[in-house]
Amino acid sequence: MPRPLHLDPDRLLPADPRTRDIARALYADVAGLPIISPHGHTDPEWFATDAPFGNAAELLLVPDHYLFRMLYSQGVRLESLGIGGPPVDPRAAWRILAENFHLFRGTPSRMWLDWVFSEAFGMDVALDGETAEIYFDTITEALQRDEFRPRALFDRYGIELLATTESPLDCLEHHRTIRESGWQGRVVTAYRPDPVVDPDFEGFAQNLESFSELTCEDCLSWQGYLAAHRKRRGFFAAMGATSTDHGHPSAATANLSVSEAEALFDRVKHGNASAADAELFRAQMLTEMAGMSLEDGLVMQVHPGSFRNHNRQLFETFGRDKGADIPTRTDYVHALRPLLEKYGNETDLSIILFTLDESSYARELAPLAGHYPCLKLGPAWWFHDSPEGMRRFRLMTTETAGFYNTVGFNDDTRAFLSIPARHDVARRIDCGFLAQLVAEGRMEDWEAAETARDLTYNLVKQAYRL
Amino acid sequence: MPRPLHLDPDRLLPADPRTRDIARALYADVAGLPIISPHGHTDPEWFATDAPFGNAAELLLVPDHYLFRMLYSQGVRLESLGIGGPPVDPRAAWRILAENFHLFRGTPSRMWLDWVFSEAFGMDVALDGETAEIYFDTITEALQRDEFRPRALFDRYGIELLATTESPLDCLEHHRTIRESGWQGRVVTAYRPDPVVDPDFEGFAQNLESFSELTCEDCLSWQGYLAAHRKRRGFFAAMGATSTDHGHPSAATANLSVSEAEALFDRVKHGNASAADAELFRAQMLTEMAGMSLEDGLVMQVHPGSFRNHNRQLFETFGRDKGADIPTRTDYVHALRPLLEKYGNETDLSIILFTLDESSYARELAPLAGHYPCLKLGPAWWFHDSPEGMRRFRLMTTETAGFYNTVGFNDDTRAFLSIPARHDVARRIDCGFLAQLVAEGRMEDWEAAETARDLTYNLVKQAYRL
Amino acid sequence: MPRPLHLDPDRLLPADPRTRDIARALYADVAGLPIISPHGHTDPEWFATDAPFGNAAELLLVPDHYLFRMLYSQGVRLESLGIGGPPVDPRAAWRILAENFHLFRGTPSRMWLDWVFSEAFGMDVALDGETAEIYFDTITEALQRDEFRPRALFDRYGIELLATTESPLDCLEHHRTIRESGWQGRVVTAYRPDPVVDPDFEGFAQNLESFSELTCEDCLSWQGYLAAHRKRRGFFAAMGATSTDHGHPSAATANLSVSEAEALFDRVKHGNASAADAELFRAQMLTEMAGMSLEDGLVMQVHPGSFRNHNRQLFETFGRDKGADIPTRTDYVHALRPLLEKYGNETDLSIILFTLDESSYARELAPLAGHYPCLKLGPAWWFHDSPEGMRRFRLMTTETAGFYNTVGFNDDTRAFLSIPARHDVARRIDCGFLAQLVAEGRMEDWEAAETARDLTYNLVKQAYRL
Repeated sequence: MPRPLHLDPDRLLPADPRTRDIARALYADVAGLPIISPHGHTDPEWFATDAPFGNAAELLLVPDHYLFRMLYSQGVRLESLGIGGPPVDPRAAWRILAENFHLFRGTPSRMWLDWVFSEAFGMDVALDGETAEIYFDTITEALQRDEFRPRALFDRYGIELLATTESPLDCLEHHRTIRESGWQGRVVTAYRPDPVVDPDFEGFAQNLESFSELTCEDCLSWQGYLAAHRKRRGFFAAMGATSTDHGHPSAATANLSVSEAEALFDRVKHGNASAADAELFRAQMLTEMAGMSLEDGLVMQVHPGSFRNHNRQLFETFGRDKGADIPTRTDYVHALRPLLEKYGNETDLSIILFTLDESSYARELAPLAGHYPCLKLGPAWWFHDSPEGMRRFRLMTTETAGFYNTVGFNDDTRAFLSIPARHDVARRIDCGFLAQLVAEGRMEDWEAAETARDLTYNLVKQAYRL
Repeated sequence: MPRPLHLDPDRLLPADPRTRDIARALYADVAGLPIISPHGHTDPEWFATDAPFGNAAELLLVPDHYLFRMLYSQGVRLESLGIGGPPVDPRAAWRILAENFHLFRGTPSRMWLDWVFSEAFGMDVALDGETAEIYFDTITEALQRDEFRPRALFDRYGIELLATTESPLDCLEHHRTIRESGWQGRVVTAYRPDPVVDPDFEGFAQNLESFSELTCEDCLSWQGYLAAHRKRRGFFAAMGATSTDHGHPSAATANLSVSEAEALFDRVKHGNASAADAELFRAQMLTEMAGMSLEDGLVMQVHPGSFRNHNRQLFETFGRDKGADIPTRTDYVHALRPLLEKYGNETDLSIILFTLDESSYARELAPLAGHYPCLKLGPAWWFHDSPEGMRRFRLMTTETAGFYNTVGFNDDTRAFLSIPARHDVARRIDCGFLAQLVAEGRMEDWEAAETARDLTYNLVKQAYRL
Repeated sequence: MPRPLHLDPDRLLPADPRTRDIARALYADVAGLPIISPHGHTDPEWFATDAPFGNAAELLLVPDHYLFRMLYSQGVRLESLGIGGPPVDPRAAWRILAENFHLFRGTPSRMWLDWVFSEAFGMDVALDGETAEIYFDTITEALQRDEFRPRALFDRYGIELLATTESPLDCLEHHRTIRESGWQGRVVTAYRPDPVVDPDFEGFAQNLESFSELTCEDCLSWQGYLAAHRKRRGFFAAMGATSTDHGHPSAATANLSVSEAEALFDRVKHGNASAADAELFRAQMLTEMAGMSLEDGLVMQVHPGSFRNHNRQLFETFGRDKGADIPTRTDYVHALRPLLEKYGNETDLSIILFTLDESSYARELAPLAGHYPCLKLGPAWWFHDSPEGMRRFRLMTTETAGFYNTVGFNDDTRAFLSIPARHDVARRIDCGFLAQLVAEGRMEDWEAAETARDLTYNLVKQAYRL
């Protein structure tokens, strides 16, 4: 007999009864607030075409590297899931997930999926080998109905704004289509220049050529290259972007003279940069981007510290984003100093810092954000976008940076269906954290309620200038 | 209508009712014990002259970089607070703090200030823009009364001993005045030689000249320089000091031969040391200081790992101690080894280690202190001198180092009025931690009570040889 | 009057009543499961000869560096405990432990010893100076009785399998004796090749000579040396070993060509390797060992990151394992990559990673184990083999790696009598952790029960191929 699936209405709230009561009241007040998703990786084509999603495996498994990396870690071949090989029966791929679903116990993926199963698709039995078929059929059939098309879900989910992330080389045709469609959903882009900023990016030299073509600037000259960025940033802003995003291996910044920067650019622009030059160029470009943000008002997001494509063999066979990006120790104090020497005291500049190295929360990030006017702390990111990860974020940043140097929640996901589940986890954890402060006499209840609303809704609007 | 201000009598005790009951009993037993403040940065002139403090802003805001750095991080100009610019109306400065007081939610500054407002000044409404005036007036008026003069507060607060921190170049006139005044309050000094030990300190070369003049030793010769330290340490000890204090960028120590040390001193003494020589000289001096401690019995405190004056522009305009000191990753295992090779097994030597890098608590500091006879662990420091910071300190050091390789609490503050609030936080957190051990069957209640008294009163007296 | 000694039946379970109820039910279900001890340092001679243990001090104090290092840290001389000097009266040594037993408050040693005192020896008063004699007499007398001989304890403790750890140079005579004795207790060995793999190991060059003699291979040639490893691994496997173990200063691995490896071996084999060559050779050998594991199926354990014999003076006087091994910051992401490039995607290879650097749990180890098929995470190790250490392990690894990339518990001890106490702590902490997930609506009760049994019994059997 299948096991029942049920979502505890008090899930993630603290176990202690009095603290839970306080948390429940705080949560009731913010649970229904609109969702603002200022940073993520959904595909704008979904909202442009509004075509129905495919089947359960194609929607929920194949694009979600949180999921298939775990299966892979236990010996499942990616090809058997329909990833990177010839097509497979999606029903068979789904069955593999179902039979291994116990692997996800205690992980956020499990919570997000259970929410999607229960809330979006109305399942009332737990996923396992026995229920694999009924799940596949129910979900796949539902996806054909109008109410499961992307725009309908967007509206039903109460999303006030959703930002995607595009390369400067993207012509933003889907965003244009969305804007011209008459649909009221607000989907905007963000400027992610890694393909033309990181000399180690695949095809960097070619990307510069395309960058020239797209902008009618000479992107093989330093000034032309900078002008191209200014143009593209302007275009992205015109298409609704309010932010840029930078995913570098480290948080290194530099503050070179114009002639030094020019000479460096000449060394890297043909795509055969030394490791040191590549790092220095990325570093200099963070400072250049900060300068442009001062000019055009785009908020700057820095997502450093991931060792991308750690598994070379997997990368060569299957490409990027296959669950083999591994965090590394990340320094901020020395790394950010060149940029901060130039722009740190600018009150009109807003730089949102993320980390995969939790040891930097209390030691470096909270003291930096608690001092420099231009710095804010992004929420717990990636592997740490989880109940315990979020708790650690609040526990380790609040006492030094306060709540008001943080910027609300980012779901940062390509798993569109789980967006409400992810925001719900953040709201519950924040309310639980605030309830703990109230229960321990460290905050008044009215302050906690005000802060809960700020963390859920107001801070993200302010921080991203929405 | 203003919000009420109230201090929860159970604040910071664990929320679980049974654990809270245990904690409450432990706390009741230590809440009233005298305060020993073995390390801090109050101004001895206060106790020498016993002059009344000025106004609310001058007393509570301007000297407290915990406070104004947070306002600065949110775009408030320091000049508007009366810091580093022409004088401003203190009432206007105070209003800025009041209107932004929500920024401090969840921070220890908020708890300390609320205690001062409520317990010291009898306020019963919360600070915000609406109550700014009544706060400013009430506090400023109170400060003119005799009961708010420094010595009266010292006595009322039940302070058994308070240590300040002075440079070897300080002639300790205020300490002399205090001793000769007939007042019974015990205010002692501590020997902080950074200005004559750190070649990167502002005015180092000149400081050595002054050091020569003050000591009648030739401080441009290595032996004379060491003799000058011995003399000054002796003078400080005669003025009540039982400890020295060392605030270096890292915990590096060295163990050079006399001729190597001499040659190094010759390279740095004129104030143009290379970065490597400066680091090596500080390192060698920690070892020299340990040797002198073995001779004269002064307890040695090491406070490493702060990147001082990270914000160059702010430093050049406003000077030191403006909230821009940022912690860095700090190694102890390799750094301390040269000193420990020479003196690590001395049972008469006592070195108290502090850190701003919590990742070293369980990994390095607790194992080191749990082995070497000369090492003890100082309490959670600076940014970590907070409820969660103190909890992490106990959680991550106790299982390896035990309680008896720690040294009680340091308030380390220049905010004199908040000293009882700070000690009270430490007592509550320690009692809560012990209560947790009792509630989980890991300690007997009578042991917890004994340990609570040791952590509050006995260990600090032993560790600082008071 | 002596204080009573009692073990709280609910010890270590969460304090919140509802969570405790859930935890208690989970624990009741696993408390009595057999003990599997797949990695530790007990002496096989005990089980070979089955001779009675000596006295209280000789059994419980002298071999336990967790204990005497703490006494040493508070000024007790090791010689006074009978360590490293002329023989002392064991009763006097025991008295020193008893009088200082408060030093262990809040440490796991205290919990383990209290269990041994109460459960193994039936003591009902707490250990202190007053009860030192009665403890010494009771324990010492008990040890003469048959029920306290090693095999009887092994059986009484419900140990299903216990692995010791031996050098390739060990002829495993005790293991042979055990196997030939007809006793049913399953005691196996593990292959720990550090003495012939680490060029910095005491006597490395001589060890290679012995390695040649023992294996009839030319261990001064690279190929002969590798062949000797293969032979010895085969012999260890025949004597029951299912694993190897590697205790290197770092987690560095290398992937040299055969000719590079050969040249490196020629540089290090005479025992005067440079530090860089020694590190590179250890690194290369981890990769070689992984290759051999693929051939012979032995599971590979890596225990990196301890700075061994940090206290040189103590080492020179008293030798290894005297409580002066200090953890260091340990990188895995870059360090393991050469090995993982070669073997990371092998599903038949099993490498169990340990760490002393908890900052790597969430940042590096969980993401690595949550991706690579060959990697699993060993339990909280050494200083972190403690209630809070185990909690942090689960809190920081589960959300990314899940439960099923971990391998159950290792007691890793030479303190034989405390083995059940150590496994009991792990079971209680895991049940408490699972109960928390249930109480917060993050896991169903039936899943928690299944997972508790897996963590206690099934995962260790699978991971160690028992």
